[in-house]
Amino acid sequence: MQCVFDARQTAHDPQTFLVAGRLRPSPEQPRRAEVLLNGAREAGLEVVAPADYGRGPLAAVHTSEYLAFLETIHARWSALPDANAEVVPNIHPDRRAASYPTSPVGQAGWHLQDTACPVGASTWHAAYWSAQTALTGAELVLEGERSAYALSRPPGHHALADAAGGFCFLANASIAAQRLRDAGRRVAILDVDVHHGNGTQAIFYDRGDVLTVSIHCDPSVYYPFFWGHAQERGIGQGEGANFNLPLARGTSDDGFLEALGAALARIRSFGTDALVIALGLDAYEGDPLAGLGVTTPGFARIGEAIGRFGLPTLLVQEGGYLSEELGQNLTSFLGGFANGQAEAGRVHV
Amino acid sequence: MQCVFDARQTAHDPQTFLVAGRLRPSPEQPRRAEVLLNGAREAGLEVVAPADYGRGPLAAVHTSEYLAFLETIHARWSALPDANAEVVPNIHPDRRAASYPTSPVGQAGWHLQDTACPVGASTWHAAYWSAQTALTGAELVLEGERSAYALSRPPGHHALADAAGGFCFLANASIAAQRLRDAGRRVAILDVDVHHGNGTQAIFYDRGDVLTVSIHCDPSVYYPFFWGHAQERGIGQGEGANFNLPLARGTSDDGFLEALGAALARIRSFGTDALVIALGLDAYEGDPLAGLGVTTPGFARIGEAIGRFGLPTLLVQEGGYLSEELGQNLTSFLGGFANGQAEAGRVHV
Repeated sequence: MQCVFDARQTAHDPQTFLVAGRLRPSPEQPRRAEVLLNGAREAGLEVVAPADYGRGPLAAVHTSEYLAFLETIHARWSALPDANAEVVPNIHPDRRAASYPTSPVGQAGWHLQDTACPVGASTWHAAYWSAQTALTGAELVLEGERSAYALSRPPGHHALADAAGGFCFLANASIAAQRLRDAGRRVAILDVDVHHGNGTQAIFYDRGDVLTVSIHCDPSVYYPFFWGHAQERGIGQGEGANFNLPLARGTSDDGFLEALGAALARIRSFGTDALVIALGLDAYEGDPLAGLGVTTPGFARIGEAIGRFGLPTLLVQEGGYLSEELGQNLTSFLGGFANGQAEAGRVHV
Repeated sequence: MQCVFDARQTAHDPQTFLVAGRLRPSPEQPRRAEVLLNGAREAGLEVVAPADYGRGPLAAVHTSEYLAFLETIHARWSALPDANAEVVPNIHPDRRAASYPTSPVGQAGWHLQDTACPVGASTWHAAYWSAQTALTGAELVLEGERSAYALSRPPGHHALADAAGGFCFLANASIAAQRLRDAGRRVAILDVDVHHGNGTQAIFYDRGDVLTVSIHCDPSVYYPFFWGHAQERGIGQGEGANFNLPLARGTSDDGFLEALGAALARIRSFGTDALVIALGLDAYEGDPLAGLGVTTPGFARIGEAIGRFGLPTLLVQEGGYLSEELGQNLTSFLGGFANGQAEAGRVHV
């Protein structure tokens, strides 16, 4: 399996992270990419560079208004009197009867949903290559690879069509899924990050042509708070095509695997022929964001179950933060996934 | 004329104010109340204490969910690990397909629209007495006073039915207007604060029974950014019952008075028989929030035009921040207002 990676992604180095009213260091550090790259190499993956598919596939998921914002806001913000080095929002529209603002401060509040997605001078470029990385992975699958791993960073699953949030700027997994969809595939996105993939959910919420499934820590007590409950099932054409599996805080391997079984059964029912995994590793019991209790061997079991499922599969990196075992957890997942795929191959042949 | 005031309002002492990505001291300081009280005394007003009308009139404008949040959030927030002394939001729902959260962090983002309305231990009580102050002013008018001045602080005109914002927690002017409405009056609210009264607008946006008018600095370049444009005219039953008069940044007395003429003409057309003035003094040329260029004598002219209009009038304090002239500006407005009323009295007799 190939690992798509581009070092330009590491130029994004967020400093601002406001939690419980205090500024703290952001856990979404550039070093994550390095550690994950080592983890992928450890699992035997060959590292390849992304191609550049331009803005078109990004605009198939995001509004052009938002893309223009991301590309230009840092320079415009920097012209404000005594501005912070990063764009940080301080006022947010609830979208009820609201007009789109022209000022950088207003636009920051419109397009940045929280204080965990500061925009620095290099953010647009890093996010751009993160999305191209996921797109290149999708192309590998379309070209006939059974699977590919896109080491995308910054992550993407909290990004909405028109807004950043939770360390995420461009919706990498959704962008890749849309590319697969546009090539005629019947696509499901399965999100195993500890956080609900609210961006992915929102992007496809009123559509029935892409199935979105997320396993995550119960949002009643955990980011992103407002989305991720079991009763959110999609609307209109999308009704029934969104499936949330919130887990109690601290749930360990067995509970996670049980939910994964339900998720895969739903993906089977959808007639899925291409699978995108939003691969967060922060469900780890030792992750600093402490939501669930998945173990390092647990990731191998999760990977194996997904691999055994036998579909052409694109793995897109999401969260997972610096701990001693971050790299090992990726290696563990990828090893299990390869074993599962090999087993599926034997069954099918 | 009587000035309603309660010193319990000054217990709210906000520390957090995030602007352009940096934490700064909040301009909404308790000392404002003291300075304004002196300004009212200087104009010859008699100071009286508010009565307590309970939660009913507050709940006539705000959701009970929000009132419960305001009353309880500080204690629940304080139980979070390493929580800041003030409740400060860090994630905001855009309300699209969102579920109401149970966690204090999620609720803070739901009910606090920006980082200019931190909730401290005394915030609920201060806001409560600020609203009772406005209600007591409304009662004075209902009892037959030609006018009353409610020294409400914290201010209220950015507060929504279910959210705080921009130094505001309870929508004092709207609560008072609703009381007048419930007593059978035909009410208009005229907001002369330098900031658009987006809370007031939102509360009555789909209603035709209360007219809302606001003169303010163009929100394209100024808080609250998302609301306050001329094209926002109300919806449904409220269509045409919201009137925004944005002014170019730096507009001085003559420009303000011209807009005031248009505002009063609209208020006349509505058949208004009770007027509530959301009396910000931050349109002052020397105000630290620097939006418009009204002078100290200009406030007398504005007050006189409103007084001459001749309606039973409740003045509710909104913004206006510490400068050498804050107290004088109130004295100037109140003096002009009294002269205008006297003139109107002569005309009517």
